Amino acid sequence: MREIFFLSDFGLVDVYVALVKQAMRRIASDLQIHDLTHAVAPHDLRAAAYQLYQAVPYLPDGAVVLAVVDPGVGSERRAVVVRGEHLWYVVPDNGLLTLAAIRDTWQNSYLLEAAGMPLISNTFHGRDLFGPAAARLAMGERGFLGEAVQLSSLVHLPLSISEGPQGEILTFDRFGNAITTLRIQESPVDVWTAGRRFTGVSYYAEGAKDEPLALMGSSGLLELALYQGNAQEALGLKVGMPVRQLKMPS
Amino acid sequence: MREIFFLSDFGLVDVYVALVKQAMRRIASDLQIHDLTHAVAPHDLRAAAYQLYQAVPYLPDGAVVLAVVDPGVGSERRAVVVRGEHLWYVVPDNGLLTLAAIRDTWQNSYLLEAAGMPLISNTFHGRDLFGPAAARLAMGERGFLGEAVQLSSLVHLPLSISEGPQGEILTFDRFGNAITTLRIQESPVDVWTAGRRFTGVSYYAEGAKDEPLALMGSSGLLELALYQGNAQEALGLKVGMPVRQLKMPS
Amino acid sequence: MREIFFLSDFGLVDVYVALVKQAMRRIASDLQIHDLTHAVAPHDLRAAAYQLYQAVPYLPDGAVVLAVVDPGVGSERRAVVVRGEHLWYVVPDNGLLTLAAIRDTWQNSYLLEAAGMPLISNTFHGRDLFGPAAARLAMGERGFLGEAVQLSSLVHLPLSISEGPQGEILTFDRFGNAITTLRIQESPVDVWTAGRRFTGVSYYAEGAKDEPLALMGSSGLLELALYQGNAQEALGLKVGMPVRQLKMPS
Repeated sequence: MREIFFLSDFGLVDVYVALVKQAMRRIASDLQIHDLTHAVAPHDLRAAAYQLYQAVPYLPDGAVVLAVVDPGVGSERRAVVVRGEHLWYVVPDNGLLTLAAIRDTWQNSYLLEAAGMPLISNTFHGRDLFGPAAARLAMGERGFLGEAVQLSSLVHLPLSISEGPQGEILTFDRFGNAITTLRIQESPVDVWTAGRRFTGVSYYAEGAKDEPLALMGSSGLLELALYQGNAQEALGLKVGMPVRQLKMPS
Repeated sequence: MREIFFLSDFGLVDVYVALVKQAMRRIASDLQIHDLTHAVAPHDLRAAAYQLYQAVPYLPDGAVVLAVVDPGVGSERRAVVVRGEHLWYVVPDNGLLTLAAIRDTWQNSYLLEAAGMPLISNTFHGRDLFGPAAARLAMGERGFLGEAVQLSSLVHLPLSISEGPQGEILTFDRFGNAITTLRIQESPVDVWTAGRRFTGVSYYAEGAKDEPLALMGSSGLLELALYQGNAQEALGLKVGMPVRQLKMPS
Repeated sequence: MREIFFLSDFGLVDVYVALVKQAMRRIASDLQIHDLTHAVAPHDLRAAAYQLYQAVPYLPDGAVVLAVVDPGVGSERRAVVVRGEHLWYVVPDNGLLTLAAIRDTWQNSYLLEAAGMPLISNTFHGRDLFGPAAARLAMGERGFLGEAVQLSSLVHLPLSISEGPQGEILTFDRFGNAITTLRIQESPVDVWTAGRRFTGVSYYAEGAKDEPLALMGSSGLLELALYQGNAQEALGLKVGMPVRQLKMPS
């Protein structure tokens, strides 16, 4: 119950991540704070939503997810705590949880206010608001939660996961593999994207050199890849491109 | 008393950081070693000085700061331990602490010598000298400290923090926000840099799209930013550019 | 006996590293999992082999090294556990240990099979196979190991360390220093690479500005460097370029 999983776009160059962790440890020195990633592209809510989708099934029940990608920091956007069946989330209300919600149904949500948290800056709510709230939550405190928020009022990104046959490119991983919004049960399956057929395979090395491949990725979503190559760069793939499942050749 | 906060320019590609930590754990296995950042640009003393300035107020009393950005490794530059009112510092004497000193007044300083530390390489004093010294310091050892160093003899970078109206661009964060040397009490305030007016605001999202903004950053220094943009790239900002505070329009 | 040192090319953008660690903690919550690096260039076995060579002498006896750079994931390439005199290794059998073996002689090797490990994906054996195996090994379990593998059958990269006079550029560090395959006992020594003489020195700062330098690096291998410069970029150095030791001028 004292585990926190921390995702942000704070990057690795600045001490921001260290300062948020220190703000949490000041509240409880024995917290276990684990990094999910801090290298989400600046303000890329879509990529952050995917990373959370990918992580959720592997985190321990009752853990706290602290996710701060927050282009609206200091503005009117709400700060919220969301209780899922499986995990707690401390986030700006900007759609970050759009995909995670598919894997962890929301139960309740609460406003997070500055009340009782000193030193609120206008630019660093990770350190001054979200981090301390996550620490308190992980310690079992609930009293600091604000008024209940209608679940239906939480912000959603225009993104969904589909069983096929139509989807789109959701984001990319560091290998240049395109992650799609397609969660297809039968595999392998060929798909069509960017004017090209991607051959369905079961693993990367099954492909020939330079052959566009489609395979079920480790997150359960269909990925587009080149064996030992970078599909994003070599094939000019872009976020949002439509992806269409083809009938398997008989 | 066993906490170490570690900053370097060793980067994340090489195992250098892991080897320094291992050298510390070999001295005391129960140390708490926290990363500040290891992605300071290679040999960028100015950026490192800023990161330490930003971190110092949030670190626990008596903790040890291990900071290794060390272009002069192996040469005549001194290795020192500095005792501040608040924290201990283990550093090469090259100006790294120039800005941190503003927030944590120096009390004493000691030479750090290889005495009693085996395996001194000419290229990796982080692993062979500074790391082990930080570990011993965190364990409460003092006997290994060398002769006292005159505080006035410690190297300073030509950098200062100003209450206005003149300052300069100190460095950039990963979002492309320019951190300036201006610590201004009344805010918001307009400033002039690079032939352009930056409008004073209280938070990023207060700005219009593409409008150059000036706001108080989380480190207490004035920042120059574009809402959801990269000010460094879009406006051609550079380290050292003068920044002038304007009278607020009445 | 519960320490794991983890190297991969998973990068820092995705949550892959966090998911592997979580898979390990699920097996034993009190493991000490240390990062070596996760920013090895994608699929760069040569760079990974060098990082392991560099790290091996500094890791504690009996620790488990989990190293996953695995372009052949899902294919026929074997997954193995190797027992060195000093450390245990959990790796794909693709040559990752080629250089580490010089510093830690192999004793035995075993096949690693999916037996008893649920949820084997075709794309993420780090999470589903190698990580759990490393965790069990660190806990002292041995029963899950598969049949013995002939040490002579393990894959080797075409790479070796030489006492001179001929070697090659092995890889680069973040400062743009070239690491060579030369392990030279007498130092300093001049070398010839890329049509240029590199002057032997004892430390970086001994060089003049823009002077190509050769010095013994912290890993025990000869490095090619520019003082306060990036030798890789400025001098057009590339992996595999021959490096020849010159007689010292008398």
